[in-house]
Amino acid sequence: MKPVEPVENEVKKGNLYGLGIGPGDPELLTIKAHRILTSVPVIAYPTMESGKVFARAIVADFIRPDQIEVPMPLPFSVERSSQPYYDIGAEKIAEHLEAGRDVAVLCEGEPMLYGSFMYIFNRLSKRFHTEVIPGISSTFASAAMLGAPLTFRNDVLSIMPATLEAETLRDRLAVADAAVIIKLGRHFAKIKTILQELNLFERALYIERATLPNQVIKPIAEVDPDNVPYWAIVMIPSQTNPQ
Amino acid sequence: MKPVEPVENEVKKGNLYGLGIGPGDPELLTIKAHRILTSVPVIAYPTMESGKVFARAIVADFIRPDQIEVPMPLPFSVERSSQPYYDIGAEKIAEHLEAGRDVAVLCEGEPMLYGSFMYIFNRLSKRFHTEVIPGISSTFASAAMLGAPLTFRNDVLSIMPATLEAETLRDRLAVADAAVIIKLGRHFAKIKTILQELNLFERALYIERATLPNQVIKPIAEVDPDNVPYWAIVMIPSQTNPQ
Repeated sequence: MKPVEPVENEVKKGNLYGLGIGPGDPELLTIKAHRILTSVPVIAYPTMESGKVFARAIVADFIRPDQIEVPMPLPFSVERSSQPYYDIGAEKIAEHLEAGRDVAVLCEGEPMLYGSFMYIFNRLSKRFHTEVIPGISSTFASAAMLGAPLTFRNDVLSIMPATLEAETLRDRLAVADAAVIIKLGRHFAKIKTILQELNLFERALYIERATLPNQVIKPIAEVDPDNVPYWAIVMIPSQTNPQ
Repeated sequence: MKPVEPVENEVKKGNLYGLGIGPGDPELLTIKAHRILTSVPVIAYPTMESGKVFARAIVADFIRPDQIEVPMPLPFSVERSSQPYYDIGAEKIAEHLEAGRDVAVLCEGEPMLYGSFMYIFNRLSKRFHTEVIPGISSTFASAAMLGAPLTFRNDVLSIMPATLEAETLRDRLAVADAAVIIKLGRHFAKIKTILQELNLFERALYIERATLPNQVIKPIAEVDPDNVPYWAIVMIPSQTNPQ
């Protein structure tokens, strides 16, 4: 007996996945992110107007030719707001979801921690079933690459962007048991001065592009402030480390 | 022509791996952690004197009968120092490494963030080649499960244990743009009072055992302070979230 086909008045909407894909080493994807990435029909990712597509590069070996790719251009200049760009990207993704196709949006590192996916999440999570898959943050991958235990027991950890004003950075660093300063780039000289003022410079560790083939680890005293990439991190591990 | 066998006077030492195995869902292991876990001859993990072996349970389906298992008992009571226990565990691991066998030490969550592996790292990383594989922290897995973007742009994030004194918690929370309070357990009532004093209680989110089958999410106002597990987290997402 042939089963009766259900009458469907409308297409079932697709699922939206925010995929944390980690700091750069493709092996640092989770099994779950890999499974979703290789099973969805549509993959979306931010691209820079300059042509850089870092998120896609991390997982390039896992993408198949039959998967639809949706690049989402973002402005190259930090002077321009990226919000109108996310409006356009979100609508391109929504078209696939409305047509019943699941979409995985690639997000470097951990999506909920300064992640680009949050802007898509804010635009679409009320309209479509949305699942966020956590990823390895470059913050903690850096601690692993540096071989530096970060926090013990009762330590407070603060994660802060180097883009903040010097006074705020100084106040937060002064009370943190352990700290990670991200998004260094052209702010390195300011950070160096603050760390010296707080007697933290000797404890600080420096790493560029953690887990990537061009990763650099060097003593912080040898860093040239004029050549610090955005993807550099300064880490101040806890001193309560029991030996 | 047969190659000359190299003369070896001593056994090559094994490699020590600190494996971050994530918050509980086995699919949140990284591809790298899974590869190492399934290829090493020896797997070590902490166990409680009470018999609980949470870390092993996460990856139980990946362990083969031919792999050697090294349980490392830790004291059940927080009154007793765990350091002598780690001395014993580290020596059991060192015996395998000296004999040339690679050892993977399981560590819940992220090893460098309040992780048990750091105590093994401190004891053995100077004697043996050591590699730390970062894992998904329950902190960020909680944000994903709660559907709560945590930090944007210039936000400072603070991660703090509920075990701290009320005054310290109050001071740190007062200046954090976003915060995660871990290790709640019997400290929930204290945290609730502080959050109410700082007008943060309405913004706070509550989750138990993120990503596990018995995960619980409920409004923080409905939490019974007498029944909060150690693995519960309170999260205060950033308010700068652009909608």
